[in-house]
Amino acid sequence: MKLKDLADKIKGRVRGNGDTEISRVMGAEAAGEGDITFISNPKYTRFLGETNASAVIVTEELADAGVDKNFLIAEDPYLAFAKVLSILNPKEAPEAGISKSATIADSAKIGSNVHIGANVVIEDNASIGDNSSIYANTYIGKNSTLGSQCLIYPNVTIRENIEIKDRVSIHSGTVVGSDGFGYAKEGSGAFKVPQTGGVIIEDDVELGASVTIDRGTIGETIIGAGSKIDNLVQIAHNVKIGKCCIIVAQVGISGSTTIGDGVTIAGQSGIAGHLDIADNVTFGARSGVTNDVKEPGVFTGYPAMDHKKWLRVQSVYAKLPELSKRIKKLEMELEELRDTDKKKK
Amino acid sequence: MKLKDLADKIKGRVRGNGDTEISRVMGAEAAGEGDITFISNPKYTRFLGETNASAVIVTEELADAGVDKNFLIAEDPYLAFAKVLSILNPKEAPEAGISKSATIADSAKIGSNVHIGANVVIEDNASIGDNSSIYANTYIGKNSTLGSQCLIYPNVTIRENIEIKDRVSIHSGTVVGSDGFGYAKEGSGAFKVPQTGGVIIEDDVELGASVTIDRGTIGETIIGAGSKIDNLVQIAHNVKIGKCCIIVAQVGISGSTTIGDGVTIAGQSGIAGHLDIADNVTFGARSGVTNDVKEPGVFTGYPAMDHKKWLRVQSVYAKLPELSKRIKKLEMELEELRDTDKKKK
Amino acid sequence: MKLKDLADKIKGRVRGNGDTEISRVMGAEAAGEGDITFISNPKYTRFLGETNASAVIVTEELADAGVDKNFLIAEDPYLAFAKVLSILNPKEAPEAGISKSATIADSAKIGSNVHIGANVVIEDNASIGDNSSIYANTYIGKNSTLGSQCLIYPNVTIRENIEIKDRVSIHSGTVVGSDGFGYAKEGSGAFKVPQTGGVIIEDDVELGASVTIDRGTIGETIIGAGSKIDNLVQIAHNVKIGKCCIIVAQVGISGSTTIGDGVTIAGQSGIAGHLDIADNVTFGARSGVTNDVKEPGVFTGYPAMDHKKWLRVQSVYAKLPELSKRIKKLEMELEELRDTDKKKK
Repeated sequence: MKLKDLADKIKGRVRGNGDTEISRVMGAEAAGEGDITFISNPKYTRFLGETNASAVIVTEELADAGVDKNFLIAEDPYLAFAKVLSILNPKEAPEAGISKSATIADSAKIGSNVHIGANVVIEDNASIGDNSSIYANTYIGKNSTLGSQCLIYPNVTIRENIEIKDRVSIHSGTVVGSDGFGYAKEGSGAFKVPQTGGVIIEDDVELGASVTIDRGTIGETIIGAGSKIDNLVQIAHNVKIGKCCIIVAQVGISGSTTIGDGVTIAGQSGIAGHLDIADNVTFGARSGVTNDVKEPGVFTGYPAMDHKKWLRVQSVYAKLPELSKRIKKLEMELEELRDTDKKKK
Repeated sequence: MKLKDLADKIKGRVRGNGDTEISRVMGAEAAGEGDITFISNPKYTRFLGETNASAVIVTEELADAGVDKNFLIAEDPYLAFAKVLSILNPKEAPEAGISKSATIADSAKIGSNVHIGANVVIEDNASIGDNSSIYANTYIGKNSTLGSQCLIYPNVTIRENIEIKDRVSIHSGTVVGSDGFGYAKEGSGAFKVPQTGGVIIEDDVELGASVTIDRGTIGETIIGAGSKIDNLVQIAHNVKIGKCCIIVAQVGISGSTTIGDGVTIAGQSGIAGHLDIADNVTFGARSGVTNDVKEPGVFTGYPAMDHKKWLRVQSVYAKLPELSKRIKKLEMELEELRDTDKKKK
Repeated sequence: MKLKDLADKIKGRVRGNGDTEISRVMGAEAAGEGDITFISNPKYTRFLGETNASAVIVTEELADAGVDKNFLIAEDPYLAFAKVLSILNPKEAPEAGISKSATIADSAKIGSNVHIGANVVIEDNASIGDNSSIYANTYIGKNSTLGSQCLIYPNVTIRENIEIKDRVSIHSGTVVGSDGFGYAKEGSGAFKVPQTGGVIIEDDVELGASVTIDRGTIGETIIGAGSKIDNLVQIAHNVKIGKCCIIVAQVGISGSTTIGDGVTIAGQSGIAGHLDIADNVTFGARSGVTNDVKEPGVFTGYPAMDHKKWLRVQSVYAKLPELSKRIKKLEMELEELRDTDKKKK
């Protein structure tokens, strides 16, 4: 594809030779003839001079930096890179059709142009929307509904009474609708609280691999439209996640917590139960959140605190032995000073 | 169902109209005509006046609080709620029968009234007890035994030589009997220590989704009767977990550690290997346990310490930059004082 | 097997009766007639006198400790134990053959002496090397290649365009080649960055249960030869792991980070993205690594620091309330001293 055609498609602008043929996106170091690369971080400006790529996606500012290259200029080079990558690597949908080895209940409704892979099991009254693909060995329980253009990878489990809307992607190993973890103490044992609710996964959600999303005890666990969840994340019963959230790998969110819209939770963080987290909050990696957060902001640590404050806390934390010595020294010096004073008397 | 009949079944007591028809359990805010709700936390007493539920499960004390309602009085309203929920939502067992697409070894023994779903694989000499249900796409290895009334959800893997007793539930994605993580150094490489042991899952255990339980290296990994394990928990080789333990999501327990009875381990905690944890210990969320615990108690933090102490530690930790400034100030003031003293001389 | 024959096979030396018959490896306490046990930790020397084992694997030094036993003397008793265990418990490979219920694309290439279990799905142009075993319900995507002597347990997902070399073991529930977690901000939403790369798993790698390894965005995610990865570990897109690394359960490694050879990462640690970690680095349990590490060494904590320093930091951390009181006391005493001084004037 010509550089100028790529630029047209992503509403970018060419500087240099727009007829340059581009066939591949590559990292700056590995790129060569026929490749386009991108530099979005000013830290990597030096690669502009070093890369052998035929073209580079950059900001206007970087294009003006004095290096002679074929440029695709975009306001957000990373977004432009993602779009170019998707243009040059169109996602190949699996062929429509239903595998002979799939087990589909008579009462299930299957839309048009649907792919259902080998050994897929679809139980009573489940329904699959048009243009959706269900890869091999995936299970879809009773009364569960999938919208259109969904992409469900192999070995996924979607339990009964789950509602999945349109353009949802679910990666392998993920379980949607396992029982919430609820027990009432009865003597020295535990009486299981029945988990009678469901899960709603709204439009354009992506769930990574081996994510676990428990069903509501009563009512639903909800993942809001456009939210993206990374691998090995745990979402407990009755959690409500807002729209366009980003939840990174190995995060855990405890029962009945509500997360606002546009919230980012970095990897390995944990959020306690029954909390309310405001819109547009960001939690840094490995945060432990034990209180409501009422205003947007960046918070990190355990207990989670203002991120800048946390950076200072961590910096002092790493010097604790030294601090301890300084306190000891102060105590001795003060003692000495008092002794001197006493002697004077 | 009439309120008085519900009360009979759970050995509670009615105050108000026992003939009230109850068809559903709902949260206090969402409840309406025909619904029963519960208030177990005195913090939520205000909902008593606000809820539109036809009846409310409460303690005697709350029933006396002056609000006019139909009450189901119970010593432990949360337990009563769980029981009412289970009465109004009886668990529907999947129909008995063996799917034609299941692959069952001739030497496997299948009890009576068993459900075996599509594509289930049961290997040589495995056995399944009466009234157990094995959902679709689950694998049961050679010589493994399941007791009666077990409930194994889709896409579970139970490896060879595993013993699962009665009334055990295992959620989707869970793996029982993967190899323990053991290697002996040999030059710059690693020689795999064969993992020749098994796993015993005792009566009434529930394992959440995508839990991993490794087999013993020699001897067994054991999950004691009545213990409940949440999603994404890691149990290493030769761990022994006592009876009636509660292990919350994303906890990891390292090899050969022994956990007593009635232990609670809150989410994202880690327990080092070869430790002994006494009965009735509770670890707070995100604890890192590196030493034996010999007495019951509540412990939190990394290193795990008495929970109340940890609360004080965390509170000082969050003020470290201030502490650091106060030390600096003390140093300067002390210096000044000494200077003054010197000048006096 | 006779003790002397075992010794020959592992290149150890017998002291005592080499004709002793050994049939089983057991722990020192449980061992009896016909069992061999091992003592590698000098801490457990007392077991030498207590064990009923017919023979004990020990170092020369321990054999000289004055206890009269049949010894198998080895430089590294733990390695010797692992080898004896593997000799007495030879791994039984599943019988070669292809299950009738497997779904194998016509274009797939299957080597000789291969086991393919029930419901295995092998897509177009995939290939399986000689003497490999693929257990039931596992999925292997288009164009993916497995080398020889691989062992893939049930319910594994290997996505398309994955390269797995020789003697690789992958435990149940593991996903290789899920999409990397990459989105570019577009308005309030997220534009998915296509994940067009692959994964290379080199020779002799073992992946535990429910591990997730994302494919590269561009280029590959690589797990180096001989590396061993425990359960529930997350490896993000474009991570490069060196040779002979040990990565313990529930670790997460963020995108584009490079890990050297011989690196050990203990459980529940997290490594941030775009970092370089040198060869032969060890991270202690629950470390949070946010910076490059340029030299070998042992590091622990969050932020990760020299392990010995971290031990001191943790010891002061646990005494923070006391430190805080000492500072308060210093402030009061200093104030008092100044007051005294003033009065003198």
